[in-house]
Amino acid sequence: MKLYHWQPAPNPRRVRIFLAEKSISVPMEDVGEGPRLRSDYRANYSFAMVPMLELDDGTQIGEAMAICRYFEDLHPDPPLMGVDARDKAVVDMWERRAWNEGMAGAAEVFRNTHAAFVDRGLPGFSEPVPQIPALVERGRRRVAHFFQVFDAQLAGRSYVAGERYSVADITTLCSIDFAKMAKIDIPRECTDLRRWYETVSARPSARA
Amino acid sequence: MKLYHWQPAPNPRRVRIFLAEKSISVPMEDVGEGPRLRSDYRANYSFAMVPMLELDDGTQIGEAMAICRYFEDLHPDPPLMGVDARDKAVVDMWERRAWNEGMAGAAEVFRNTHAAFVDRGLPGFSEPVPQIPALVERGRRRVAHFFQVFDAQLAGRSYVAGERYSVADITTLCSIDFAKMAKIDIPRECTDLRRWYETVSARPSARA
Repeated sequence: MKLYHWQPAPNPRRVRIFLAEKSISVPMEDVGEGPRLRSDYRANYSFAMVPMLELDDGTQIGEAMAICRYFEDLHPDPPLMGVDARDKAVVDMWERRAWNEGMAGAAEVFRNTHAAFVDRGLPGFSEPVPQIPALVERGRRRVAHFFQVFDAQLAGRSYVAGERYSVADITTLCSIDFAKMAKIDIPRECTDLRRWYETVSARPSARA
Repeated sequence: MKLYHWQPAPNPRRVRIFLAEKSISVPMEDVGEGPRLRSDYRANYSFAMVPMLELDDGTQIGEAMAICRYFEDLHPDPPLMGVDARDKAVVDMWERRAWNEGMAGAAEVFRNTHAAFVDRGLPGFSEPVPQIPALVERGRRRVAHFFQVFDAQLAGRSYVAGERYSVADITTLCSIDFAKMAKIDIPRECTDLRRWYETVSARPSARA
C-alpha cells in the first residue's frame, strides 16, 4: 500500500498524525508540485485530492477519516475513534463538528484569499471555479464560531471528546493550524482552547 | 432516549431511514415550527440543529452519522456501515463524498435562494448570516459534479459503495431529494444514477 499526501495540506496531516499516534509505518509519497498536485497523480486519481491510500489490490481510499477508519479496524490500539457505542458516537460527532465548523470555515478564508487559488475555489474540479470574496468574511465568522464552541467544550475536559485523545482532537488541531495559514489565530479569551492547543501540539505526532 | 427531528429536513431523514432499515423503533419528536426549529428546542440544544439524539443519561448526540454510528454499534445487523476494514473505509469515503459534494452543494443553492432562509445562510447561528448570491451558481456546479461522479460510480454497481446497501446510499438519496427541493433534478443522461435512485426510493425506508 501507499499513502499519497502533500506536506503542507491540512487533510493529509490528519492521517499522518493518526498513523503516528498508532505507531504505524506506511510508505508515503508527496504528490505536491508548487501549489498544485502533480498531473500524473491527478490522472491516476480522478478525485484529484489528498490524502489517498492505495491498497495493494488497487482500491483507492480517499477522505482522511475513511483512511483512518481503515487503520482503526486493523490496528485498534490505541483506540482513536471511541471505545463503545456512546463514545464512538461522541468522537464522530466532534470530529464532524471540527470539520464542518473549523476546517470548512478556514478553507473558505484560505481558498478565497490566497493568490495561488484564484480560479480554484473548490478542490477536485478540473475546470476553473472562481473565488467568492463574500466567503472570506463568512469563513471568518465560521472560524470565530468554531473557536467559541470548542473553547466551551474544552472547559473541564482534557480532550475534545472527553478524557481520551481521539480523531476529534486531530481534526480540531489541523483546522486551527489551517486557520493560522489563513492568518487567523485562536482568540486570547479562549483560554481552554489555547491550553488544549499547547498540549496536543506538544505531542510528537503533531510534527508528522 | 429520544430522537429530535424535523420532518422536511434532509439530515434527520438520514437517521430515520437508517433506523427503518435496521427495524429499530425510537421515540421521536418533531421540533419544527414553520420554517424554524422551536425556541424551546434551541434553548435545550445550543447547536440548534437537527437531528439530535438525547440519551437517558442526558448525553446529546448531534450529527446524523454520529447517531447512526451509535445504533450501528448496538444493533450491528443488517450492517449499514461496512463489514471489514476495507469495506468500512469505502462506505465511509462514499458517505462523506455524498455529503461534501451533494448535500453541501444542494444546501448552498437552497439556503441562498429560499425566502425563508434570508439571513440564515448557515445553520446553527443565532445572529443573522446573510445569503451569498454567488453561492447559488457555485452550488449548482457542485451538484452537477456530484451527479456525474455518482453516476459513474453506479455504473455496474448495485449500490454506491458496492453490492450492499449502506449509509452511503442513504446520504446520496437524501442529497438528491434535497437538490429536488432546490429545483435541481438528476440529469437525463445520468442513467445509472437514475436507475439506482428509483431502486432505493422504492425501499420502504425511503418513506421514513
